[in-house]
Amino acid sequence: MTTTDRASTKERLLDAAAELFYRDGVSIGVEALCRTAGVSKRSMYQLFASKDEVLAASLERRAPGYAAQLAPAEGEAGTPRERILYVFGQAEKLSAEPGYQGCPFLAALVELKNPEHPASLVARRAKELLQEAFRVQAELGGARDPEFLARQLMLVFDGASARAGARIETLDGLTTATVTTLLDAAGVA
Amino acid sequence: MTTTDRASTKERLLDAAAELFYRDGVSIGVEALCRTAGVSKRSMYQLFASKDEVLAASLERRAPGYAAQLAPAEGEAGTPRERILYVFGQAEKLSAEPGYQGCPFLAALVELKNPEHPASLVARRAKELLQEAFRVQAELGGARDPEFLARQLMLVFDGASARAGARIETLDGLTTATVTTLLDAAGVA
Repeated sequence: MTTTDRASTKERLLDAAAELFYRDGVSIGVEALCRTAGVSKRSMYQLFASKDEVLAASLERRAPGYAAQLAPAEGEAGTPRERILYVFGQAEKLSAEPGYQGCPFLAALVELKNPEHPASLVARRAKELLQEAFRVQAELGGARDPEFLARQLMLVFDGASARAGARIETLDGLTTATVTTLLDAAGVA
Repeated sequence: MTTTDRASTKERLLDAAAELFYRDGVSIGVEALCRTAGVSKRSMYQLFASKDEVLAASLERRAPGYAAQLAPAEGEAGTPRERILYVFGQAEKLSAEPGYQGCPFLAALVELKNPEHPASLVARRAKELLQEAFRVQAELGGARDPEFLARQLMLVFDGASARAGARIETLDGLTTATVTTLLDAAGVA
C-alpha cells in the first residue's frame, strides 16, 4: 500500500471500529469489522497486530472529540461550578440522542473485564482525564477536598452514563441536580 | 432425562452460566458454557430454547441471593437512613472481593446493548427492585421527593459498581459519604 492508501485504510477501519464496537460491543468479529470498513483482513493485519489493537486505536482516536463535546470551549467564561455543571448538562443532552449507549470508554471497560487489555488502558486514561478536569475545577472553586469531590462526580457521571445507555434511566436534570447537591456540600460556591 | 436428571442438569448449567457470564461477559459461547457445566449441547437445548434464555434464567436465579447480600436482614432494627446506608456499605465490601466485576445485572445491561433481550428484562427488573427498596426507605425516612432520591441513589450505586468492577476506583467509604450528603440534602434524618 502507498502511504496515502495506508492512511485512508486505517481511517476507514477506525471509523468502522468505533461505530461497531459502540453499537454492538467489543465482541464484534474481525470479519464484520473488515466488511463494514470495506477493508481486507490482509490489509487490517498489515496495519494492526490484532483486533484488540484496532479497538484500542479506535478509542484513542475518539477520545479528543468526546472530551470536546463535554467541556466548555477554551476561554469561555464561567465559574468552576458552572464549568463542572456544564459537563453534566452536555452529558444529559448526549444521552437523549438516538443510538446513545453510554460513555464509550466506560462501556469498553465493563465489557472487556480486563484492566490490562490495550483498549482498557486507553479507556482508563480517558476517564482519568475527565476526573482530573473535575479535580482542577473543584480546586479552583474552593472545594474542601477536590480529589474526593472529583471521585464523587465520576460516580455520578458513570452511573448516569451506564443507566441512560442501558435505557433504565432518563436523565432530564437528574445529574445536574445531584451534582449541585455535591458541589454545595463540598463548599464549591 | 428423568425429572431429577433434568433438575440437576439445569442447575449445573445455570451455575456455570452465572460464573462464566459474570467473569467473561455475555458473548461467551454455547461450547464453553456446556463444557464448563459438563452438559451436552443436546441436553442444554432440551432445557432452554437458546443461550439467551440460559443467560436470562441464570440472572433470574441469582437475583434473590444478590438482593439478600445487600439488604439488612428482615426485622433487623435500624432507621430508614441506616437501612439505605447499609446497602452501600455492603456493596463496598463486595467490591473488595477478588473476582468482583461490578453488579452482574448492570454489566449484563451494558454488554447486551438491547433492552428487549430476555436477560436485559431480568436485569432491569432486579435494578427496579433495588430502586423501589430505596424509594420505600426514602419515604419512611421523610425524604422530600422519595422517587427522586431513589434515582440519585441508583446513580451512585451503579456508578460505583461499574467503576470498581472495572478497577478504576476503590470505594473505601466513597459511596457511603456521597449517599450521606444526598440523604442530608433530601431531608432524611
